[in-house]
Amino acid sequence: MAAPGNSAPWQALVKEKQERQKATIPPKWLIELPDTRTLDVTSIPETCGLLSARELEITRSNVEVLLPRLASGSWSAVEVTTAFYKRAIIAHQLTNCLTEIFVDKALARAAALDEHLKTTGKVVGPLHGLPVSLKDQINIEGIEASMGYVSWLGKYATKNSVLVDVLLELGAVPFVKTNIPQTLMWPETFNHIFGRTSNPHNRSLTSGGSSGGEGALIALRGSPLGVGSDIGGSVRIPSAFCGVYGLRPSYNRIPYGGCVNSMEGQDSVLSVLGPISNSVVGLKAFTQSVIEAQPWLKDPLALRKRWSPEEYDLIEHNNGKNLCFAILWNDRLTVPHPPIIRGLETTKKALIAAGHTVIDWVPHKHGEIYETLRAVWAAGAAEDYAVTTSPTGEPVISTMSPDPDVAGTEASFRPGKAGISAYQLWQTQKRKRELREEYLAHWQQTAGTTGTGRPVDAIISPAAAYAAPPHGKNKNADYTMIWNLLDYTTMVIPISKVDPTFDVKKPAHEFLSDRDQINYDLYDPVVFANAPISIQVVGRTLEEEAVLALGKIVDDAVKALSTKATGKM
Amino acid sequence: MAAPGNSAPWQALVKEKQERQKATIPPKWLIELPDTRTLDVTSIPETCGLLSARELEITRSNVEVLLPRLASGSWSAVEVTTAFYKRAIIAHQLTNCLTEIFVDKALARAAALDEHLKTTGKVVGPLHGLPVSLKDQINIEGIEASMGYVSWLGKYATKNSVLVDVLLELGAVPFVKTNIPQTLMWPETFNHIFGRTSNPHNRSLTSGGSSGGEGALIALRGSPLGVGSDIGGSVRIPSAFCGVYGLRPSYNRIPYGGCVNSMEGQDSVLSVLGPISNSVVGLKAFTQSVIEAQPWLKDPLALRKRWSPEEYDLIEHNNGKNLCFAILWNDRLTVPHPPIIRGLETTKKALIAAGHTVIDWVPHKHGEIYETLRAVWAAGAAEDYAVTTSPTGEPVISTMSPDPDVAGTEASFRPGKAGISAYQLWQTQKRKRELREEYLAHWQQTAGTTGTGRPVDAIISPAAAYAAPPHGKNKNADYTMIWNLLDYTTMVIPISKVDPTFDVKKPAHEFLSDRDQINYDLYDPVVFANAPISIQVVGRTLEEEAVLALGKIVDDAVKALSTKATGKM
Repeated sequence: MAAPGNSAPWQALVKEKQERQKATIPPKWLIELPDTRTLDVTSIPETCGLLSARELEITRSNVEVLLPRLASGSWSAVEVTTAFYKRAIIAHQLTNCLTEIFVDKALARAAALDEHLKTTGKVVGPLHGLPVSLKDQINIEGIEASMGYVSWLGKYATKNSVLVDVLLELGAVPFVKTNIPQTLMWPETFNHIFGRTSNPHNRSLTSGGSSGGEGALIALRGSPLGVGSDIGGSVRIPSAFCGVYGLRPSYNRIPYGGCVNSMEGQDSVLSVLGPISNSVVGLKAFTQSVIEAQPWLKDPLALRKRWSPEEYDLIEHNNGKNLCFAILWNDRLTVPHPPIIRGLETTKKALIAAGHTVIDWVPHKHGEIYETLRAVWAAGAAEDYAVTTSPTGEPVISTMSPDPDVAGTEASFRPGKAGISAYQLWQTQKRKRELREEYLAHWQQTAGTTGTGRPVDAIISPAAAYAAPPHGKNKNADYTMIWNLLDYTTMVIPISKVDPTFDVKKPAHEFLSDRDQINYDLYDPVVFANAPISIQVVGRTLEEEAVLALGKIVDDAVKALSTKATGKM
Repeated sequence: MAAPGNSAPWQALVKEKQERQKATIPPKWLIELPDTRTLDVTSIPETCGLLSARELEITRSNVEVLLPRLASGSWSAVEVTTAFYKRAIIAHQLTNCLTEIFVDKALARAAALDEHLKTTGKVVGPLHGLPVSLKDQINIEGIEASMGYVSWLGKYATKNSVLVDVLLELGAVPFVKTNIPQTLMWPETFNHIFGRTSNPHNRSLTSGGSSGGEGALIALRGSPLGVGSDIGGSVRIPSAFCGVYGLRPSYNRIPYGGCVNSMEGQDSVLSVLGPISNSVVGLKAFTQSVIEAQPWLKDPLALRKRWSPEEYDLIEHNNGKNLCFAILWNDRLTVPHPPIIRGLETTKKALIAAGHTVIDWVPHKHGEIYETLRAVWAAGAAEDYAVTTSPTGEPVISTMSPDPDVAGTEASFRPGKAGISAYQLWQTQKRKRELREEYLAHWQQTAGTTGTGRPVDAIISPAAAYAAPPHGKNKNADYTMIWNLLDYTTMVIPISKVDPTFDVKKPAHEFLSDRDQINYDLYDPVVFANAPISIQVVGRTLEEEAVLALGKIVDDAVKALSTKATGKM
């Protein structure tokens, strides 16, 4: 990034905002910080002494435990919100994961919910009292929505995003907003205002992006349920890198209206909102309840497509019995690192043990799909960023490396300055449609090889060719982007963690591409130690119900295998 | 259009194709043509003597009569196909509505269906034996698909469009392809190859476009069910001008994959395929059976959204009782001609007589919506047309006027040569989303004024500010385009016909706009005599089921009123 002069006004705006943010943190929730050399901070919320035993019990609970206790009143919304708020503030001190903090507003909302339950004996909705964290771009009336752009500081939302209106109807308690990269179009999390979010499992590694604040926060159990957005992997990369569950729904299943965003008006490969949580059930609770709220009556782009209990019962997938999964071992361009291969092997073993069939997935033109997707974004992205940053002159960030020597020596996710014409964009989008048609035919024809009579029920794919890499090193979102262009519903499931004992570096293989060699060179088991290993479960377009059910089957199978291996529950 | 030199090669290609087309017409099906001064040709299929009494009975039958007789075998697929084919060829001789004619192929298909029914006792599918006409852009393997572009002559489809595969699965008999304007982006029907399609009710008037061949063909009962496409009114304008029923479904409900098209890759305001027929039941039979065939397994853009019997039963509309309709009398830019106002008044009277409430619809920013939609198309349209026509140098048609003096003195639907950048297109598309959001909120807030507790159940809108105008005079698709940008499901229903006795010209009013004055000046009851009067029933995005049911309610109400008025069934 170009070194900006200290006298430029944007730095002053940043400083002022950082002070305002600090002032929103209750001083009594400040903890004694560990040494910066302490890389794994996941146990600190439990050991720092800020949370009571009851608050620890609450924050250790997943959505499936929280919701019935909140509904019965055995845990009040105020105490649940307070517990998660405290833990979120701890998480923020450890990983820098929050942007907007508004304790009083959230607690007032929680108190009103408690009052409602007490007075009427009824919950407001299926998410009654559940604290929900939101990626910074999701608007809450009265709360600033800078999205990491200095030029957007001072923009207080004049109304809620549609999703926030829906969440309020459902009884949820929006309670924090979370960190993002400038522009959102980067798979790490760093911006001029709020700085960098680190990975709680190993703070020398990235939390991923663009929903990196959510990933770090939920991994530290500072929120039971968060909402991110995903245009190339932005829900799934942080979920995978931080070891939590994340769902990328298909275009327009979850209402996006009223959010701030990059590249607005880009109507071809759409960003989608999706949940991040500590369990598959958490993802389902969000998805089902939001859809059942009929968001199409509030957002014209939200698809009028009801939640289908039949599809969740897998009526199109043999009711979940004797399924056939196919594993994408590599995309023929980049061989994943040893821990990622181990994650796929574990999943395969678990699924076979659970009575399913597992075959290999044959990739189809992944390289062209990546290039086509990048071309759609690049069509107008540079101009979009230039226009957005121009009011303050803040630099467009061109590297996420913390090493100042790297500045200017590398480029990755930033498109070139020159956009293309609308007609040229149409040609790219036409090719995109053809690739989607080819991939559908490719999937359908697997019916001949599965042995079930059906095409493959779901693909098991790496979430990236690596576990969370060091800050500044995440430059390849290929394994997530592919499913964005194809608009396949995709869930991330954590499988294990990098262990230098198991996950040794292998001798060099014959490289499939330049990026394969770069990727090979990146791996060092010690550097990646303790980073979560995750996989993607990939279903069809608009198969949210089925992917939630299939993801549960995969998750249960992996857990059962692990229980069997260790003899413990 | 620029007068092309006779020596240019494209004219030779046209001549050769016209001869090939003529050769596909069985000579025994040629009729004695009426004088060109015979304007209303709707009775000629019945009087020309080519059809037997049984063939007349068959071709007078709507889809709801044909399907059970075909399924029971009381009418064979071969005799039904033969009857409609003969009548289609008559229609073609009267209005020039066909492009591709393939009698042997269609009859072979019909014979195979008969054999199947005879052998197995079962129908192939719900459309067993039904002849279906297809707009020229819908590909049938082995059939030429020029779409009116000289440069595309000789392009024989190497595979079926997805819709054709689906129709074959359903048991239908694709049997003719129908005429279109060059580029498809014009609301009349004329191209260099196949010439002009006229309106069978008054051949001095246009059939509308771009699915004008379908409109004329179905009005003459030369096909029981046709498929057109609609990006700005191209199903609805010919349906309205020709006095038949047409449905514009929402984006991607009906599979579009594998068709040829203009402006491919324009992903923002999508063209959709929709049915045209002589009854609401015909539209429903098509829509329901195509959706029930799960087209999303063949076309990745087709939405995975099942046919909903509950939504067809109007569970979101008080089960069809005591509905509230709102009439759009004018868009605040163009006051419709007297017969169109009469059509709206008749509909209002009929709905009130049927026990429903009728209020006025308040238009919201229609002018800006029209401009925004045109800007999306114009972004790359001129370059698209230039690239497509360049191989042969055929001129891009810039007027549909049959008067050569008009050439070069007017411009309407053709965008300017200069396209815009992808970034500029994104800004237009962003504004489009905002307008959709505003319109949804505008519709939702009618809940306060309907008296039903619900928002307006459907809008009743003109299909155009006029009935079918003289050739070359249809330059304003505003009343249909609006629903394309908003992506509202919309059905056209015929109400009456222009009668110079009733539909007198009114004194000039205070004009709302320049186009209002131009429209006022256009009206002359004698010129428009006998042109059908139609309305649109407008529902929400992806409300195909509900609009089919609401359209039936409107149609039944209008028919009941007419029965009451005339004392006849």
